Amino acid sequence: MNLRPLVPDTGSVRILDQSLLPHQETWLELATLEACAEAIETMRVRGAPLIGVTAAFGVAIAMRHDASDAALAAAVARLARTRPTAVNLHWALARMQRFLAALPAAERSGAGWREALAIFDEDIAANAAIGQHGLALIEAIAAQRAGPVRVMTHCNAGALATCGWGTALSPVYAAQAAGVPVSVWVSETRPRNQGLLTCWELARESVPHTLIADNAAGHLMQHGEVDLVIVGADRIAANGDAANKIGTYMKALAARAHAVPFYIAAPTSTVDAMCERGSGIPIEARSADEVRRVAGLDERNQPASVRIAAADCANPAFDVTPAALITAIITEQGIVAPHDIAGPRHER
Amino acid sequence: MNLRPLVPDTGSVRILDQSLLPHQETWLELATLEACAEAIETMRVRGAPLIGVTAAFGVAIAMRHDASDAALAAAVARLARTRPTAVNLHWALARMQRFLAALPAAERSGAGWREALAIFDEDIAANAAIGQHGLALIEAIAAQRAGPVRVMTHCNAGALATCGWGTALSPVYAAQAAGVPVSVWVSETRPRNQGLLTCWELARESVPHTLIADNAAGHLMQHGEVDLVIVGADRIAANGDAANKIGTYMKALAARAHAVPFYIAAPTSTVDAMCERGSGIPIEARSADEVRRVAGLDERNQPASVRIAAADCANPAFDVTPAALITAIITEQGIVAPHDIAGPRHER
Repeated sequence: MNLRPLVPDTGSVRILDQSLLPHQETWLELATLEACAEAIETMRVRGAPLIGVTAAFGVAIAMRHDASDAALAAAVARLARTRPTAVNLHWALARMQRFLAALPAAERSGAGWREALAIFDEDIAANAAIGQHGLALIEAIAAQRAGPVRVMTHCNAGALATCGWGTALSPVYAAQAAGVPVSVWVSETRPRNQGLLTCWELARESVPHTLIADNAAGHLMQHGEVDLVIVGADRIAANGDAANKIGTYMKALAARAHAVPFYIAAPTSTVDAMCERGSGIPIEARSADEVRRVAGLDERNQPASVRIAAADCANPAFDVTPAALITAIITEQGIVAPHDIAGPRHER
Repeated sequence: MNLRPLVPDTGSVRILDQSLLPHQETWLELATLEACAEAIETMRVRGAPLIGVTAAFGVAIAMRHDASDAALAAAVARLARTRPTAVNLHWALARMQRFLAALPAAERSGAGWREALAIFDEDIAANAAIGQHGLALIEAIAAQRAGPVRVMTHCNAGALATCGWGTALSPVYAAQAAGVPVSVWVSETRPRNQGLLTCWELARESVPHTLIADNAAGHLMQHGEVDLVIVGADRIAANGDAANKIGTYMKALAARAHAVPFYIAAPTSTVDAMCERGSGIPIEARSADEVRRVAGLDERNQPASVRIAAADCANPAFDVTPAALITAIITEQGIVAPHDIAGPRHER
């Protein structure tokens, strides 16, 4: 996997601007705290693990300019405000703050950078481990059927969502590398179309895939066209309920209806042990413009008489899949039952 | 309701070109058999009942040019090929063929036109009756809660899908007319975005509505934001299984998970008594272009390197909701349990 959406440089990071993909491959340099915060807010970087890593570098970059206690607190506060649902953001910020607060200000610049790099390296290692654990699940299915193992995913939980191979897609890449035939059902993932990011990266790695409208997922499972579902997560509550991109929940319901195994793939940094159950996870409401910006329905093409008012749109960005619908959670530490996700083995 | 997407003229019909809505209101005259067939194929007219009526007029128009047995058979065959799933098409064609075949050729031109007009008038009457039966369901919910009754629908089964008030939306319009407060959750309905048609016609009638991505439906039901679901149907099997626009099935699963009543609204011409169960309903596979044509992803904007091959897309246009997930079917004859839909009461 040579696709890295974030590359640490000397005192700054370069990112692939995902808001322009797949139409355009543009790299940006993030050299200030504010640039990091803006990149997260506008989804130039996205995916729970990558958001966390970008925030860690945001703090490290801030420390290079001003390593005071006040600057540290301000940097953490600014980044914490960017997006509400992915807990990896808060996990990375808490880790950076705890680490840096214990150091004298003079050491914070260099040490902060090294800590952000450590989080970056750990994410890559976690991706690889998730890939190997998930590979075993795919191999078990491959042993029982002819033809490729048909994985369904949602949104993009691939290399672009992380620092390495991804979470949900890491087992797919591991299968491809191991010579186990796989194919991927890719949901468009309205309203932001992250399915196109998934198609883009799967095509780069020559993994067979099929783009579908989100609406088609139930029909495919009903017709036996899906062997397993693997999706990422933005926050997993202590009871195993998991928040992920809007639309995940209906895929989980359809999987249950047709006895298709439904897996969450996520590093343990996605577990929020302080959040008892899914109903406690904050769900981001994003701009109505994302929903209004349907094919052709933009300010340029649309006559005023049919313009849809922002007040007439709703855009919840995530939903919560209850633990009872989740077959297991694939973490870097192994495959875990949802109700065990916050157990002693996973204490952080 | 002054919105009529098809208006019979003298020997031709005028239609609102729905492939251009909501961006543009363009009326077309259909004066030949081929024009009628093309309008159905390209979804200038769409919605199971309206497809049936357009096909009836297509046969009638053909008879004005050539009323021979061969021309009648050719007209029916041409129109039957246009779209596979909506059974109203075949119902209307069978009725026209049976009626016209019994007449001498000399009478077929005038009588054919009158029969098509009768089908048109019956559809309007069926819409109105469905509205009144469905109104009773909405009133019963209104009596139990403060605030508007929150109806979720899918695709467009409104005035634009029929000759009158619509099927799924007819009860909504009836409630509005009766002073019962209602609001409608409108799913975008990818890949063809028929939700925009629903927004367009609800706005014309001043019915409060909220556009959502299809992915958001499960989340809204999980959060108690939906009082009932009403959708249309393209074909109902004898056992009550119902084919409707792709995505309907996952809404039905979510409704069941949260004890939200799930209704199909359809005239009895949508029942295919010869089709035992849903698995026998042919599901139309439409062009990959509909899926590829996601925001910005067209031939003009998209670099060749990220172009998604047609072979890498799948586009089933309908799915089947099993009878067990359907609370009841609202027909022009009353509200019927799914397993009674092909019973003696509904013999056609």
